Amino acid sequence: MAEIMAELIGTMVLIIFGAGVVAGVTLKQSKGEGAGWIAISVGWGFAVALGVYVAGTVSDAHLNPAVTLGFAAIGQFPWAQVPGYIIGQLAGAFLGAVIVFLHYYPHWKATEDAGVKLGVFATGPAIRHLPANFLSELIGTAVLVFGLLAIGANTFSEGLNPIVVGLLIIAIGLSLGGTTGYAINPARDLGPRLAHALLPINKKGPSDWAYAWVPILGPFVGGIVGAVLYTLIF
Amino acid sequence: MAEIMAELIGTMVLIIFGAGVVAGVTLKQSKGEGAGWIAISVGWGFAVALGVYVAGTVSDAHLNPAVTLGFAAIGQFPWAQVPGYIIGQLAGAFLGAVIVFLHYYPHWKATEDAGVKLGVFATGPAIRHLPANFLSELIGTAVLVFGLLAIGANTFSEGLNPIVVGLLIIAIGLSLGGTTGYAINPARDLGPRLAHALLPINKKGPSDWAYAWVPILGPFVGGIVGAVLYTLIF
Amino acid sequence: MAEIMAELIGTMVLIIFGAGVVAGVTLKQSKGEGAGWIAISVGWGFAVALGVYVAGTVSDAHLNPAVTLGFAAIGQFPWAQVPGYIIGQLAGAFLGAVIVFLHYYPHWKATEDAGVKLGVFATGPAIRHLPANFLSELIGTAVLVFGLLAIGANTFSEGLNPIVVGLLIIAIGLSLGGTTGYAINPARDLGPRLAHALLPINKKGPSDWAYAWVPILGPFVGGIVGAVLYTLIF
Amino acid sequence: MAEIMAELIGTMVLIIFGAGVVAGVTLKQSKGEGAGWIAISVGWGFAVALGVYVAGTVSDAHLNPAVTLGFAAIGQFPWAQVPGYIIGQLAGAFLGAVIVFLHYYPHWKATEDAGVKLGVFATGPAIRHLPANFLSELIGTAVLVFGLLAIGANTFSEGLNPIVVGLLIIAIGLSLGGTTGYAINPARDLGPRLAHALLPINKKGPSDWAYAWVPILGPFVGGIVGAVLYTLIF
Repeated sequence: MAEIMAELIGTMVLIIFGAGVVAGVTLKQSKGEGAGWIAISVGWGFAVALGVYVAGTVSDAHLNPAVTLGFAAIGQFPWAQVPGYIIGQLAGAFLGAVIVFLHYYPHWKATEDAGVKLGVFATGPAIRHLPANFLSELIGTAVLVFGLLAIGANTFSEGLNPIVVGLLIIAIGLSLGGTTGYAINPARDLGPRLAHALLPINKKGPSDWAYAWVPILGPFVGGIVGAVLYTLIF
Repeated sequence: MAEIMAELIGTMVLIIFGAGVVAGVTLKQSKGEGAGWIAISVGWGFAVALGVYVAGTVSDAHLNPAVTLGFAAIGQFPWAQVPGYIIGQLAGAFLGAVIVFLHYYPHWKATEDAGVKLGVFATGPAIRHLPANFLSELIGTAVLVFGLLAIGANTFSEGLNPIVVGLLIIAIGLSLGGTTGYAINPARDLGPRLAHALLPINKKGPSDWAYAWVPILGPFVGGIVGAVLYTLIF
Repeated sequence: MAEIMAELIGTMVLIIFGAGVVAGVTLKQSKGEGAGWIAISVGWGFAVALGVYVAGTVSDAHLNPAVTLGFAAIGQFPWAQVPGYIIGQLAGAFLGAVIVFLHYYPHWKATEDAGVKLGVFATGPAIRHLPANFLSELIGTAVLVFGLLAIGANTFSEGLNPIVVGLLIIAIGLSLGGTTGYAINPARDLGPRLAHALLPINKKGPSDWAYAWVPILGPFVGGIVGAVLYTLIF
Repeated sequence: MAEIMAELIGTMVLIIFGAGVVAGVTLKQSKGEGAGWIAISVGWGFAVALGVYVAGTVSDAHLNPAVTLGFAAIGQFPWAQVPGYIIGQLAGAFLGAVIVFLHYYPHWKATEDAGVKLGVFATGPAIRHLPANFLSELIGTAVLVFGLLAIGANTFSEGLNPIVVGLLIIAIGLSLGGTTGYAINPARDLGPRLAHALLPINKKGPSDWAYAWVPILGPFVGGIVGAVLYTLIF
């Protein structure tokens, strides 16, 4: 139970900083408006690093259903705990999005573009091409899980662990995020998308549920692919 | 007494770098003019990290009345030392602002906009909406104190402590700073605002005292909320 | 054999992130389009750091034929293992480029400029002047190998090793990369250039084989120069 | 003798990266052209960090006559070694500038503005006001030496030392560099200025010797002020 709570709080922190940086960079009249892709990549990297600091000592800080599933697939995590972890992650992502909604309250009205408002909560493709988008999310998540296992196996990173995980996320954002906005985490996309659908956001548009399966299924398959490849190779 | 001196010097260093980066990015003819929100966020993060290095070994480096109050509220800091710490922090913030005034001396005349000049010293809202601004400062500071406690509880961060605290500040700036400029520290705002009011700055405007309570009260409430939530959850 | 596999996988990771960041910043309609030279420098630095994390425990993470040759030249690496390492590095670089091709699949068609498409895979000179370009690659790689030996000799960097190597790469990119795009690694250029020649990239142009010897020979000579200078001085 | 050689090589590395990043960001047709003040600040920070890695184990990596003098003034460095250290630092800075000249060879002709070319080698004021410029260099160097002593006194930073020193330099650049381009090091300015005067740079202008005393005297006084203040306070 303490572990599920840690996953919930850790994922909430992850989304406060992650959805927060997208809000800060894209909502109108924000002081950070226009800070660009580097700000977003760095913001998401630190979001994950801080989520790991918050949850790390209790739950090993998955904060991501694709990581939980990938680790279970190679026997590094008990299957019985998978549902609880995923529920905690989803609930935390939803709550984090609610806090970002409150934090940027006057800026929803100041921002005309409904697509920008959705973009704070959920990912979307740069070029809509569902098979390619799916493949992108699969590759990004496979690289993520492969990288997490490599970092964990490395005595270099002892003590630096959450920082190095944050660097991995920054790198994925800069290098592989340009295609779909790198959900690489089903909870990161679904939780805030639900919040977008339910919250009273000023002049919001649709929540684009037609795309929602891509950032869920792609990461799940990619997480298993990354974990299995790592165990086959090393 | 040595601890109060350390808080004073540490907060002075924090403001030299923090007000300094805003001056460097916003004052006319500065070589850093226009470097943008990332420069400001990173500059403030390193400002806090260096303040922690300076004060850390002596006073545990609060450098922030909201942190001092939050830690006292959960019994991690003696109430009797609270007033001394806060006086040291305020005096240090004031002195740091004086040094930044001297350092950028020819640039005050070169800069026309009085609002830009005030912005080097004190925070102000992107959209003036006092309840929302208050909530923003409350959320930002709650996340700060919650994060500090999580980092401190984490054996991962031993030896990296000031760096990780700096990353937390960068993350708050990028993700939550767009609304009010993230004072998240009553001394950081009040000390330099006093300096703005008293210093002979070329063609300065008013010091916007009507807003000054927001970055004082918001952080105080937020600091207590963050500290209490952390102790309830973990 | 495990070492060659580690070099292959490590160099593949290096190119996924390295060619990936150039794709993300330069291909049309990428969400990272226009993020600029800082994004590219930081992306390549993290690419190398993550390659080192992946390969480091097994093969000592050369990931670069010029490093392998330079270390062999000063007796820090057995000559008999040089060919295997270089083959692994080349194969990994080729595979990494194939994955980047797949990941950015819809963006090749969206991008008109054939030179931009080649630039994702291979380096090219800012000003074509082959002797100066050769000298640039020589100097850049000499600084790289000299720096790697200095970092390795330094007890400061224990545990931080891959991060510091990543910072060295970021620094080389920012400070010395402006002339030729800093291949400083024969496999990093030749592997992806081969992939560019062979892959069915939408409306691609020529692979500029006339320039290909510069980012091969320059780094080989520079690697030996850097290694020999370091052993002479320290 | 080994220590003087280490100071020479370390300062050479510092200038290769430091003058290099200014060249990369400001010379025409460089791939990094226009990357801006953040690139320059980060580049100089990593320049110093890498210089410290190179020289650190042998000479304690001053790399700066103002640091050498400041440490001597408080009894942390023997006066008898001061001249040798300073000669090594100056010679290294000169050699580093020569290497940057060679590395960017075709870009000197491509760049019309003689002021930009001088700016790669030597610092200059944003607003020419010699007393204020002198004060800026004094304050910047006092903060530098004060910060170095604080970092060194801190058990937090063991093992991270050169990285933290690099962060300090980035912070000084972002926060205090906008006025004079932060020489904060007499060798960093004088060595490359001499190189500018002597090298056959295409259509170069004057070397602005009238300003040269500011980035020499300001740092010397500031270094002593910072060191003495630190010992008085802590």
